[in-house]
Parts: sequence; structure tokens; C-alpha cells
Amino acid sequence: MAKRDGGKKKRKAPWPVPAPEPALRDVLRVPEGERIDLTAYDARATPAGPADKATGLAATAALGPRLAELQERLYAASTAGDRRRLLLVLQGMDTSGKGGTVKHVIGHFNPSGCRIRAFKAPTREEQNHPFLWRIMRALPQPGEIGIFDRSHYEDVLVARVRELAPRRLISRRYGQINRFEKSLAEDGVTVVKVFLHLSYEEQRDRLLKRLDNPDKHWKFDPGDIEERALWPEYRKAYEIALERCTTDEAPWYLVPADRKWYRNWAISKLLLEHLEALDPKYPPGDFDVAECRARLLAT
Amino acid sequence: MAKRDGGKKKRKAPWPVPAPEPALRDVLRVPEGERIDLTAYDARATPAGPADKATGLAATAALGPRLAELQERLYAASTAGDRRRLLLVLQGMDTSGKGGTVKHVIGHFNPSGCRIRAFKAPTREEQNHPFLWRIMRALPQPGEIGIFDRSHYEDVLVARVRELAPRRLISRRYGQINRFEKSLAEDGVTVVKVFLHLSYEEQRDRLLKRLDNPDKHWKFDPGDIEERALWPEYRKAYEIALERCTTDEAPWYLVPADRKWYRNWAISKLLLEHLEALDPKYPPGDFDVAECRARLLAT
Repeated sequence: MAKRDGGKKKRKAPWPVPAPEPALRDVLRVPEGERIDLTAYDARATPAGPADKATGLAATAALGPRLAELQERLYAASTAGDRRRLLLVLQGMDTSGKGGTVKHVIGHFNPSGCRIRAFKAPTREEQNHPFLWRIMRALPQPGEIGIFDRSHYEDVLVARVRELAPRRLISRRYGQINRFEKSLAEDGVTVVKVFLHLSYEEQRDRLLKRLDNPDKHWKFDPGDIEERALWPEYRKAYEIALERCTTDEAPWYLVPADRKWYRNWAISKLLLEHLEALDPKYPPGDFDVAECRARLLAT
Repeated sequence: MAKRDGGKKKRKAPWPVPAPEPALRDVLRVPEGERIDLTAYDARATPAGPADKATGLAATAALGPRLAELQERLYAASTAGDRRRLLLVLQGMDTSGKGGTVKHVIGHFNPSGCRIRAFKAPTREEQNHPFLWRIMRALPQPGEIGIFDRSHYEDVLVARVRELAPRRLISRRYGQINRFEKSLAEDGVTVVKVFLHLSYEEQRDRLLKRLDNPDKHWKFDPGDIEERALWPEYRKAYEIALERCTTDEAPWYLVPADRKWYRNWAISKLLLEHLEALDPKYPPGDFDVAECRARLLAT
């Protein structure tokens, strides 16, 4: 009977192997060497991963234990001299969810291994230094996860829109930033830059919600309405920053941010992919386990 | 009929009013003006609150939302000039759970409002300053929750046991600490000092567990066995610190720490009681809501 098939054994059709899902970092990465037009990106899109809220919340929660474990490994490795660490840079318009990301995404991690810094308008002392000075001082140490809520990019965003420095000077900063980030990468810092892409309409809704709830009035600043009037200028400034500062060492990721659950999932997943690529290991002990055991039992 | 009771209406017995539970802070507070003998305190005790693990875990989880809300209120109040903040000081022998407390208890909070600092052996620069210098630099800012994993107390603990400074100098530090903490209180810092009370036996078990799991070897230092040999000296140093530095402004709380679930519940509850006493309020907006609403809708 077997001969009838030319010697080949009849086999059941195997279960189809699903095509491997593309890494989210490849989906969200800002293309290099292209003009960026932010109006072409839908801020409500769910370009990969869960497509509805219930699935998204569950998927995000499911990432938690793995993120926590990788963070512990990264920290553990640093105690044995591994200098690697991760820096998440969050940028986006007012209400785009930088603070919410810290609360919900960084909440997965052990807080003692996180170094969080929210950058406000520079102080007098900070203004007397190069714009990267305060950034250097806030960097994560080996084994840590650093989070910047705003960053050195403010110096080419609000600084450009509000003309806080001569245009000539601002133009030089893109190169300074790229060189700085290249040095960070060489020193073991994985820089994950996330632009929270919010729509003009969603910002209006979020600002209105703050106004409607007296418990949120402390978060509202009438100045936010004036900043909103400069939306096209800010969009342009972001487009330039994304174009000029997406490098191999530190690309920008464009995360649709109108849906909070999608934003939280996408950033959690991006962090997971980067931590998995680092693949940090628990370092072995440099002591005699049996001997220590015996000494302990004698106490 | 009513007359038969002398004009009084017959009433059903009311539901008995339960006796109010004593505040945990009153239960765990180190008594003032007394000799402290740590051997008299059972490190496995559950002196108030849940008495078994399942109840304890549920009770701790149930405290989370209220803790997070109070933290947000505290932070919100600071944006309107309220200088109040909270500082949790964690001290205890090796493996007593200082790190675990940060992970499990501080995990209730929004990490961006927490300022966590683990104090190690002082650096060269720190040694060139008074011992409180590095402490001052790590203090929480208004609205924040600060957490010290070890603290200025190391300068009267390991410094005393290991004779890192002349005894005369160490003796003066208790008064310096009390004056420092009084100033903190005057500046709006609620200082919650927790001594994690671990038993000698439980420490042995925890060190053995680290030895038995290669993924935990990075946490093990053979030097810990030598420190353990100085247990009586450390206990004495703790007794003196608890005696001399329990003040009205900054009392010590003695938390039994052999059961991790109880430790986590007790510290969560202590923080809750202190935050509730602060009763921070969301500040009202200082803008015209209707006018802002109209301006926003026009955009």
C-alpha cells in the first residue's frame, strides 16, 4: 500500500503554523529618512495587538509578571557589574497620558528599581547649564528602569514653539541629542522613546472632563487652552524631532494614545520586547553554597 | 398600654455598637520613657488586625484604593502650596523585609509620587559631610511619599556595633536625630519610623532559602553570616535607638516581621492611619470654570 504513494508515507495535514506576529517595535517605529506627517496617523488606531478594551486590559495585566521578572533580573545582573539599564522617554501633548503611563505601566515594576523624573520648566540653576545637564543627572543607574515624563526633547519642542532660544541654537540641538543618545547606548542604556500621539478632539474631551470634575481642577491650568491654540506649531515641532532624532541607537515609537487601554498595552509590550532583547541573567554566587549552609545551620 | 412603662415607649434592643478598634499606631507604638527589651516581643505575633494569612492578604489588598486616593490628594494639595508629606523610615536586621515592604506596600501608590532611597555604606563624599547631609538630600518634597530603606539610624546602629565612630560621637547623634526629626515635623513631614522585628530563627530560615535558590544567590552575601554573629550587639543598638528616639514628633513603630503578610498589612495600615490624619484635600481651581468651558468648546 505504501508503494502506491511512491514510497512516501501518507501524513495528516499538520496544524497550520501561524505566521509569526511582527514585533510591536517594528510596527510602531517611526520610519527613518522620511518626512513625518502626523495627520496621517490615526490616534484611535490599534495597529497591532488587542483590538478592544476588555482584551486590551487583560493582555496588559498578563504582561505584568514577566515585566517584573525581567526587571528583577536586570537589577540582579547590575550587582555583578552589568551596566545595562533602560530609559523610557515619554513625550506628547498635554493630557496625552504621560502621567497615566507612569501610573499604569510602571506600576508593573518594583518601585525601588525605578528612577522616575518629571521635567518641568527649567529652574534658574538648570538654565545656567547646557540643556542636557539636568538630563544627565536624572539618568537611571545600572540595573534600573528610568522614566522621563518629558525630557531633553522639550528643548526642541516648547523651546521652538515659544522661541525660548534663538532658532540657530535650537537647530544645533538635534545633533547634540543624537550624539548624547549614541553615547548613552554605548554605555549600556537602552533608550525607548515614546511619542504619545493624541488627536486634537480627544485633547478637548480630556480637558473638558477635568473641568467637569472638581476633584480634577488641580490638574487644570487655563494656560493649557493657550497652548492648545498652538497645536499646529507643536505638531510641526514634533514632526521635526521625530524625523531628525530617529536613529538606530534610539528610535522613536509612535503610540496611538486616544485609547488609554491601548496606550498602556502598547508601552508595556514595547518595554517587554526591549527587556527580552536584553535577556538579563541572575548572576551566579561567588561563594561556596555548601560551606555557607553549614555555617548558617551552626548558628 | 404605653402608660404601663411609665410613659416610656418600649424599644427593641438596638444592635450592639461594637467597641471601636484601637488605632494600630497606638498598638504598635514603642512606649516612651521605658526600657525596651526586644526579646519580650514575639516576632510572629499578630497584635491587631487579621490573624491568618488569607484574611491578611485580602485586608491588605482592600487598603490599596484608599491609600492611592489619599496619596493623590496629598500630591494635589501640594500643587496649591500645602507642604505636607510623609516619610516612611524602614529599619531592621538583614532579611527583615525592608525591600519586600517597598515592593508590596509602596506598590499601592502611584510611583511618580514616591521618592525611594536605599542607603548603603556612605561614599567618600558622604563621609566628608555630617551624617545627616545625605539624608537631607533624599527627603520627600511636598506632596510626596518618601521611603528610606535604611536611614540615618544606621549611624547609631552599624556605626555603634562596628565602632565606625568614637562612642562619644555616636552618643551625641541620638539628640541630633531627635532635633532633626523635630524640624522635619515642623516643616510638614510626617515621619513614620518602622522597626521590622525579626526573630533570630526566621533570619536563619530566610538566609537558607536564598542559598537554596540559585536565582536568589545575588541577594546572598557570606558577610551576612558574620553580621548575624553580632545579633545581640545589633539588638542592643536597636533597643537604645528605639528608647532614645521615640518622640511625640516621630515615634517608632515596632512591627512583627516574621510573617510577611502581617508585616505588609501592618505597614499599609499604619500609612493609611497617618494619611487619614493628614486628611489632604483636592484644592479648588482658581479659574472660572464656565468661561474655560466655553473657550475650550470654541476650539
